[in-house]
Amino acid sequence: MRVGFLQFQPRHQDVGANLAHIERLLARVEADLLVLPELCTSGYMFRDRAELGRFAELVPAGPSCRAIGRICRERSVNVVFGMAESLGEHIFNSAVLATASGDFHVYHKAHLFLEEKDIFDPGDMPFPVFEVAGVKLGMLVCFDHYFPEAARSLALAGAQIVCQPSNLVLDSAQKTTVARAIENRVYWILANRIGSETRHGKTLHFTGHSQIVGPTGSLLARAGEETEELQVVEIDPAAALDKHATPKNDLFADRRVDLYRL
Amino acid sequence: MRVGFLQFQPRHQDVGANLAHIERLLARVEADLLVLPELCTSGYMFRDRAELGRFAELVPAGPSCRAIGRICRERSVNVVFGMAESLGEHIFNSAVLATASGDFHVYHKAHLFLEEKDIFDPGDMPFPVFEVAGVKLGMLVCFDHYFPEAARSLALAGAQIVCQPSNLVLDSAQKTTVARAIENRVYWILANRIGSETRHGKTLHFTGHSQIVGPTGSLLARAGEETEELQVVEIDPAAALDKHATPKNDLFADRRVDLYRL
Repeated sequence: MRVGFLQFQPRHQDVGANLAHIERLLARVEADLLVLPELCTSGYMFRDRAELGRFAELVPAGPSCRAIGRICRERSVNVVFGMAESLGEHIFNSAVLATASGDFHVYHKAHLFLEEKDIFDPGDMPFPVFEVAGVKLGMLVCFDHYFPEAARSLALAGAQIVCQPSNLVLDSAQKTTVARAIENRVYWILANRIGSETRHGKTLHFTGHSQIVGPTGSLLARAGEETEELQVVEIDPAAALDKHATPKNDLFADRRVDLYRL
Repeated sequence: MRVGFLQFQPRHQDVGANLAHIERLLARVEADLLVLPELCTSGYMFRDRAELGRFAELVPAGPSCRAIGRICRERSVNVVFGMAESLGEHIFNSAVLATASGDFHVYHKAHLFLEEKDIFDPGDMPFPVFEVAGVKLGMLVCFDHYFPEAARSLALAGAQIVCQPSNLVLDSAQKTTVARAIENRVYWILANRIGSETRHGKTLHFTGHSQIVGPTGSLLARAGEETEELQVVEIDPAAALDKHATPKNDLFADRRVDLYRL
C-alpha cells in the first residue's frame, strides 16, 4: 500500500486557490492514501464563530468535498483532509476521508486547541474506524495526539493506520506520535502545514516536519520545517495487525484493565 | 529538589557485591531522590522460578532493603530500586521506595516482559502514589512504559515524578517516556542498567541511556549506552502540578472520557 502526506501552506480564506493548488500538487500522484493538513482549504485563524461560519462547508455537498472527491475518483486515491464542517447548528473541525470510490467519512476533532474552543463545537464521535481497500483507518486532528486515549480507542477498534491532519504550532507531536505508533503498533501519518498566519495582531507559525511512523516507531518519512512536500512510501498494513512486541507480549492482550484507574 | 539516576552493571546473582557497589557509588551523593535499575541487587536472568526464589527477598527484612535503607537514612536520600520480592507464596518484580526517614513502599510490576511471565507473579497494585518530602511519586518497572494507561493512572492519582527502574533490551523506552512526560506533564526518571548477561545459551544486552525528562518533554539528563553513571539534576516538582499545555488547555480537564473506548 502506498501512503503519504502533502505538506503545504494553505492561502488564508481562499478556498478556491487552495483547492486549485491541491489539484495541481496531486495531478500525477500515484498513491492509495494521502493525508493533508488540518483546515487545509480555509486556513486556520478566524476572528470569531461568525467569520468561521462563512467558511464552514457541508459534507459532501460543499466545494472542498466536491473538488477533492473528484481528484480521488480520477486518481484512484483515498484522501484524508481537514476542513471546517457545517452540520446543522454545529461547526466542527473535521477530518474527512474521501475515497476513490466516491464515499465520504467524517471525524469531528474531539480535543480543541486554544481559541478553537471559542469558535468550534467539540467533537462528538467515539473515534470511528473506516475501511478502505481492506485496511482499517482512523482519523485524529492535530491536538488529539496529546491524549493517548484517543489513539488507543482507534487502535482497539482495529485501526491499522492513524491519519492526523494537523496545524501544529508546538513541537510535541513529532515525539508523541512515535510513541503512539509504538504503544499501539500502528502506522501513523502526521500531515502538518507550513508557513504563518497573522490576524488581529497575533501570528501563528506552523512547524512542518510531517512524518510517517511505522508500527515499531521507525521514521518512514519526514518532511522539512518550511518546504512544500509530497512524500509517498510503501507500507505493509498487515504489520499493524500483529500486536506482539515479543513472542510472549501481545500489547493489547497484556493490558491490565483490572488495574488501570482512568 | 535534586533527583537523579544511578546506571550501572549489577553482578549476576551476587547480592553482597551489588549492595557494596551501590554503597560505594552513593557514598558522597547529595540528592533528594535517586532511581536505580530493575532487579539491581540480583541481576536479571534466572533459569526458573526455583532459582529466582533463592534471590527473592522480604521487604523490608531482606538484605537489599536493609542495606539500601541504611544508605537512605545516612545520606538523607530517598531511593527507588528494583528487586525480586518474596511475599507469601508470591514472587514479584518490585520497585521499592526506601525513604530517608526509614519507610519502605512497594510497587509490583504489572506488565511482565517475555520470560518474566514464567517466573514472576504479575503485579496486583492499581498504581499507587507515595509522598516524599511533600512530592508525590509513582513507580513503574521497565516494560510498564509501553502501556500509556499505567503512567496515566499514576498521573491522575497525582504523581509528579514517575520513577522507572529498568533492564531495557529494546530501544523504545527512551521515546515513549518522553511522550509519557508530555502527555501527563510529569517528570520521568528512567534508570536503566548496562552490560550483558548470558545464561543457558541466551545473551541479553542492556541498553543504558538512562534519562530524566521534564514535564514538557525536555531531556534534563541522558546517560551513555555503556557507562556507569550517577547523574543528578535540580528540578521544580511544582511544575508537574500545572497540567496546562496552553492557557486554555488543561490536559486532564480536556480529556474526553465520554468518547474513549478503552
